[in-house]
Amino acid sequence: MAVRTLYDLCGKDDRLRFSPYCWRAKLALKHKGLPFDTIPWHFTEKEALAFSGQGPEPERKVPVLTDEDGTTVTDSFEIMRYLDRSYPDKPLLGNEMAQERARFIKYWSEAQLAPAIMKIAILDIFALLAPEDRDYFRETREKRFGTTLESFKNPEQGRQMLASALAPLRARLSEAPYIDGDAPGGADYLAFGFFMMPYTVLSEDLFEANDVVGQWQARLLDAFGGYAREATRVGDISK
Amino acid sequence: MAVRTLYDLCGKDDRLRFSPYCWRAKLALKHKGLPFDTIPWHFTEKEALAFSGQGPEPERKVPVLTDEDGTTVTDSFEIMRYLDRSYPDKPLLGNEMAQERARFIKYWSEAQLAPAIMKIAILDIFALLAPEDRDYFRETREKRFGTTLESFKNPEQGRQMLASALAPLRARLSEAPYIDGDAPGGADYLAFGFFMMPYTVLSEDLFEANDVVGQWQARLLDAFGGYAREATRVGDISK
Repeated sequence: MAVRTLYDLCGKDDRLRFSPYCWRAKLALKHKGLPFDTIPWHFTEKEALAFSGQGPEPERKVPVLTDEDGTTVTDSFEIMRYLDRSYPDKPLLGNEMAQERARFIKYWSEAQLAPAIMKIAILDIFALLAPEDRDYFRETREKRFGTTLESFKNPEQGRQMLASALAPLRARLSEAPYIDGDAPGGADYLAFGFFMMPYTVLSEDLFEANDVVGQWQARLLDAFGGYAREATRVGDISK
Repeated sequence: MAVRTLYDLCGKDDRLRFSPYCWRAKLALKHKGLPFDTIPWHFTEKEALAFSGQGPEPERKVPVLTDEDGTTVTDSFEIMRYLDRSYPDKPLLGNEMAQERARFIKYWSEAQLAPAIMKIAILDIFALLAPEDRDYFRETREKRFGTTLESFKNPEQGRQMLASALAPLRARLSEAPYIDGDAPGGADYLAFGFFMMPYTVLSEDLFEANDVVGQWQARLLDAFGGYAREATRVGDISK
């Protein structure tokens, strides 16, 4: 039987996996109880993704899932949709109305959480990249931010942005253990993926243990037998 | 047959209805196609809500819905849940997973949109209140904000907060006409309620006609035969 594989962004140490989008896909696979192997992938290994149907090299990104039957799916949200279609038990996104609202939560995490975390962690990520990825990362991110990585970095501003970005999550988690209610679902993984970036690349924790957001993060780190908690972190690897 | 009624916050001119929470409830009733009468209510008319079961006077708030059979429901989200239970056609909140995610969108609108709009419009609201409501409004809001209404007001900061708060909505509306997809649903009304506050109390529009958020606002103003668009605005009343 062919193996289910997921291309998963890595740092100079292959074990360091910090991509929020790849974490969304990995947690989604775990939620469905589907075994899979990850294939470590560097930003500049565009050629290795030629099979993925994403078009020319600049458009090729991870995660890329190849299912046991050879079906290939890209984009973390599309991977969740594919998994719900192909493995309907334990819905990730749910029915149409639930899925539309999950899209809003996806955009909240990408438009508000991500920039705040990048302000904090950008140079930590840069330092952990494979040497051959650094020029690519600097060029694409500096174009996106309109400034150098060094000027973009502003942890204090990032923490303020994060506090503001987290307000709806904090309110939601004051009434329920997960965004999706009593048990974690697709909306939780869409947001939690972004928490795995600081978890893997920063040497200190962003949240206190008595904070509702920190408690939610801890529950998701512990889910599926501690799958996310066992992720390799910066402190685990030799510099 | 008894009439379905909704207590609806008003200004010194009874026609001015600016409460985001009441607008949520009114749009939810329109969505279900249920006729109703609104009863204009002032902040300090706590005695009039004694029947609502909300407890002592400080806890009595609008909207309060009394259905034809005498059932009384308070809180805009609970009113939506009640309407879905009692009138299952055209779901507002949908199944459990959809409803959990609607709660996130509710908190996004309350924790991020509302403070931005209040920074812009607080003194405009104050000026439109009935004289007997002004002390109550000043006292409760100054306690909440930790400062005077005059120091709290900061339209420039409010516009910056609004731009940041709207990022997920803007992204969502770039791919679909409504938060809930092809047609408006409960999540749209939860957010749109807050747009009716600046629409009614400010003399200028907050959004450009070519902006995706402005276009969404226009579609919801036009929904149900232009129900929200016909709302009385500050320019319609004598000062």
